[in-house]
Amino acid sequence: MKKLLTAVTAATLAVGAAAQSSVTLFGVVDVGVARVTGNGTSRTGLSTGGANISRLGFRGVEDLGGGLAASFWLEAGLDVDTGQGKTGGALSFNRRSTVSLAGRFGEVRLGRDDAATFLNTLIFDPFLTNGVGGNNAFIMLGAPIQISNAVSYFLPPGLGGFYAQLQYAFGEQPSNATNSQEGNYVGLRAGYRAGPVHVALATGKLQGATDGADIRIHNFGASYDFGVLRPSLLWAREKRGTAQITAVELGVTAPLGLGELRAQASRYDTAGSDADWKKFAIGYGYNLSKRTQLYATVAHLSNQAGAQRAIGVQGLAASGTSLGGSSNGYELGLRHTF
Amino acid sequence: MKKLLTAVTAATLAVGAAAQSSVTLFGVVDVGVARVTGNGTSRTGLSTGGANISRLGFRGVEDLGGGLAASFWLEAGLDVDTGQGKTGGALSFNRRSTVSLAGRFGEVRLGRDDAATFLNTLIFDPFLTNGVGGNNAFIMLGAPIQISNAVSYFLPPGLGGFYAQLQYAFGEQPSNATNSQEGNYVGLRAGYRAGPVHVALATGKLQGATDGADIRIHNFGASYDFGVLRPSLLWAREKRGTAQITAVELGVTAPLGLGELRAQASRYDTAGSDADWKKFAIGYGYNLSKRTQLYATVAHLSNQAGAQRAIGVQGLAASGTSLGGSSNGYELGLRHTF
Amino acid sequence: MKKLLTAVTAATLAVGAAAQSSVTLFGVVDVGVARVTGNGTSRTGLSTGGANISRLGFRGVEDLGGGLAASFWLEAGLDVDTGQGKTGGALSFNRRSTVSLAGRFGEVRLGRDDAATFLNTLIFDPFLTNGVGGNNAFIMLGAPIQISNAVSYFLPPGLGGFYAQLQYAFGEQPSNATNSQEGNYVGLRAGYRAGPVHVALATGKLQGATDGADIRIHNFGASYDFGVLRPSLLWAREKRGTAQITAVELGVTAPLGLGELRAQASRYDTAGSDADWKKFAIGYGYNLSKRTQLYATVAHLSNQAGAQRAIGVQGLAASGTSLGGSSNGYELGLRHTF
Repeated sequence: MKKLLTAVTAATLAVGAAAQSSVTLFGVVDVGVARVTGNGTSRTGLSTGGANISRLGFRGVEDLGGGLAASFWLEAGLDVDTGQGKTGGALSFNRRSTVSLAGRFGEVRLGRDDAATFLNTLIFDPFLTNGVGGNNAFIMLGAPIQISNAVSYFLPPGLGGFYAQLQYAFGEQPSNATNSQEGNYVGLRAGYRAGPVHVALATGKLQGATDGADIRIHNFGASYDFGVLRPSLLWAREKRGTAQITAVELGVTAPLGLGELRAQASRYDTAGSDADWKKFAIGYGYNLSKRTQLYATVAHLSNQAGAQRAIGVQGLAASGTSLGGSSNGYELGLRHTF
Repeated sequence: MKKLLTAVTAATLAVGAAAQSSVTLFGVVDVGVARVTGNGTSRTGLSTGGANISRLGFRGVEDLGGGLAASFWLEAGLDVDTGQGKTGGALSFNRRSTVSLAGRFGEVRLGRDDAATFLNTLIFDPFLTNGVGGNNAFIMLGAPIQISNAVSYFLPPGLGGFYAQLQYAFGEQPSNATNSQEGNYVGLRAGYRAGPVHVALATGKLQGATDGADIRIHNFGASYDFGVLRPSLLWAREKRGTAQITAVELGVTAPLGLGELRAQASRYDTAGSDADWKKFAIGYGYNLSKRTQLYATVAHLSNQAGAQRAIGVQGLAASGTSLGGSSNGYELGLRHTF
Repeated sequence: MKKLLTAVTAATLAVGAAAQSSVTLFGVVDVGVARVTGNGTSRTGLSTGGANISRLGFRGVEDLGGGLAASFWLEAGLDVDTGQGKTGGALSFNRRSTVSLAGRFGEVRLGRDDAATFLNTLIFDPFLTNGVGGNNAFIMLGAPIQISNAVSYFLPPGLGGFYAQLQYAFGEQPSNATNSQEGNYVGLRAGYRAGPVHVALATGKLQGATDGADIRIHNFGASYDFGVLRPSLLWAREKRGTAQITAVELGVTAPLGLGELRAQASRYDTAGSDADWKKFAIGYGYNLSKRTQLYATVAHLSNQAGAQRAIGVQGLAASGTSLGGSSNGYELGLRHTF
């Protein structure tokens, strides 16, 4: 029984005889009241995932002995404000659906997973891309967030803080089709995390139907934890044919009282045009417990003459803005993990 | 370990150190063989949810200390006869998807939930709106059963039997749209339950694209438990523009042997027309255990000259009837809760 | 606590006081890298369910006393390579969704389940119909794999190895429709399994809109376990109007090292035409543990002049072939059960 007790983290069940084997039910339910504005109009309602994406998942690890382990991870995104999932409004394991074999050699992972080139734009954003405050430093020109039919290799832990992932995803087109390479993706991510330092870079390509439709993704992030505050920098670029958008985000998180202050300033530059925009956001998350947080965020987005970005969030679409206009976002929410 | 054991009700897991914190997997699988008739035609097949709506859910409570608690509830409706869910045939948490914060002040609940104006039509029907015997005293003119993007406030327990809920749901239209109010909903429900007495009333409005398209809902229920039988009364009205339907249902449940007898007589009156109908139903549920019940129900519906309602159930559509015709329903099922 | 411990198999929870009552979370995640070829073209990517269909399920049994038990089973098919389910890409309990009452009399089961006429084509195939190696001895002319709205009766265990199932499914058409019988299905399956011997036969009919559209299914399987190898024979026939396809499959499985060798040779004959084809497959599954297997399979399919079957698998569609052409399949995967 000790084994069962010690294995209980979140809703974890010990499985069979091996102490290290378990199946875990886990999730996040995160709902807020939000208001987004732009160009004299606004929309008010319930949002979801303002602090962390709402989700329900099942994962497990089996100790195979000799340092080997098999594991699985099935994770579905949720819109808790409406009860809907992410595939036609219904549930699917759109966030992650993988089986892995791991050992001293590292980990081989098969299935649908976060794209290697997405992760930095999440990790080095104080808002983790979520809610009114999250950055837009991804999918600027169509880069994948999650990607199906992927094979990843991860270096093992214990390399003095150095980590790396190589990911390949199959487009699965017939070999004799004119677009036989479409959907093939390769991504590489490498980083160093030790003590207060965290730096990482990623590069990748998603092939289109033609060379001109390929999407190339490059990004880089760095943060340093001074204890009283953790500043971060993110630089991200996407190219598609002649189009190119570059984002730079400065962020900071700081422990404050029983919670965390977070803020970001970011700039999105479209090459050779004034379709540019800037975003500023500040928020505070107050921890009612380790699992439950009340949060509030305000954000402002201003467009240059050629852009008309407006702030929208999961569960509450943007109300739009005009070319060169601005947009605000306000969100007050409750995030509960299990 | 005691904590784990004592917390185990249904498939409940104690989480972390706090005895009051848990995550629970729960559900109902309810399948019957049913026959519905009308106007010389009939349909026979498997139905689902004849005694209680089939469902699968995950819920949890976290004790935050100081009388505060955070909780979540994710509940998906099922058609067990076909394995399908309720969003495009697939699973979603259409029945409930909420996160709550509760304390001495009461409970604030965010997400998708039962509409406050639906609950009396469920609770004061001996058949809980289910199967061939359930009433039709809801969605007569389009009132919501569950509603998304809702914020509810519930009074705390311990007010001498008095309870109340105020619910507001956002239509989430842009503020400058001509239908900017469409989908906004407000509902109020209040009741008193102590000893054998239970009374409750509710009133609410779902805004349409125009004032004339608003749906107004009013209902009232009462029951008294004499021990040998529990009679109940339900009165419910919906208005939409000039249309108005009023339902009155007399019900009774009575313990009988190892189970429960249930019966209802109800009348549905369409204002200013003879599009009226009546329904009678009687059923018995035999408890094989606290969790498992065999049930049988028969029902008869008779229309006046201007109506052609026919009995259909979850998983088995009505076979239809003629204007002024009648319709019967028969159902024999097995309900298992977990 | 003993009760909880002894009941723990997979992620099983003891429920309430009865030791025999439990709710179990279970599943299979099976992903492979596969390549299918035909007529000079090919497709390469991730497949799913190459050894066992990927799935996620919830099941439970309640001991009612006196030899009676109630149980439920909800099982959703998964495409782990994409995270999708099987209804519009989202999750539903398409594989099984049933409630049962069982006792000394046998078992009555209601809901969606494997068709009685499907099971032999699964059980007597060394590849269990899965992956590049699986047979095509089912749904040749549209026979059901799973079927909704079904009532089954199973003989109780303990009849000296003899077992049988009678299954009826409702088409649920209105009684006065011209196609009032469409979708009605009846299937009978009976077998004998004792020591090394296993034989079973099945027969059934799925009614179409007209008599000519009825599908008639007959099949028979046998296997004998010599210990060092287990040969098997499967004969299966489907008829629809004047169309008739007959499949014969010879299979063998053999323990080899820490795993199992499996092979099959099968022939599919279309009556009165040369739209015939043959398939050969050989594979090996290496057990990393009781729950986790690495597997590899190769298969070859050759068509006669009138057929153009090509090998495709779950998660990776066939790339096609020409009339009279051939097709190959290669798959290397990891199957993990929980």
